[in-house]
Amino acid sequence: MTQLTTSAVNIPPPYYAVIFTSQTTGVSTDYGRTADRMVELAAQQPGYLGVESVRDADGMGITVSYWRDLESIRAWRAHGEHTLARERGRAEWYSGYRLRIARVEREYSWSSGEAAQGNA
Amino acid sequence: MTQLTTSAVNIPPPYYAVIFTSQTTGVSTDYGRTADRMVELAAQQPGYLGVESVRDADGMGITVSYWRDLESIRAWRAHGEHTLARERGRAEWYSGYRLRIARVEREYSWSSGEAAQGNA
Repeated sequence: MTQLTTSAVNIPPPYYAVIFTSQTTGVSTDYGRTADRMVELAAQQPGYLGVESVRDADGMGITVSYWRDLESIRAWRAHGEHTLARERGRAEWYSGYRLRIARVEREYSWSSGEAAQGNA
Repeated sequence: MTQLTTSAVNIPPPYYAVIFTSQTTGVSTDYGRTADRMVELAAQQPGYLGVESVRDADGMGITVSYWRDLESIRAWRAHGEHTLARERGRAEWYSGYRLRIARVEREYSWSSGEAAQGNA
């Protein structure tokens, strides 16, 4: 049985999600290293709650990061190293992306061998 | 340049997102066919706005579907064929999943060759 790798958030809703969907160009110089660094750096920011990220073989990706409030999202957006990475993303790595900021109101989880759990 | 495949939503925020993160078991009988059918069926439901879905080679997937309001999410959840697919998903295809319902408050998009666009 595969391990469940979806990300638990340790507080009940409401909290915030940043839904980032993107398509890469195929130019990948430093991309993996920078993406790993952004995950590491995000995790050190005030209000960070977790992240889930998947990219398929065609370069389509969805990353959802979770935050305590809008203020922590704003502060992470203004972080210098993150700002430089976004600029390089537009210049080199992405052909397009879409970003949505959403307030998580309800959450449910299920894994094999246990009953469904909800936080609503 | 790769084609941008992220999903536009034709109304400005607020609207709702259902963020479904899952890990598959490796048992895939009928999985692809059922997943395609659910996407087709969801698109026919009142209040449906769009979907974005990615699964990687390790079986980790994120699907985000967008809806006009909570009532359309409830109605889709109660749909008979969708309910049967969820039951089969728990019995066969998924080792675990997490589902979050979130209210999208802001949206931005960018694609190469055009200026960023926002709906806030």
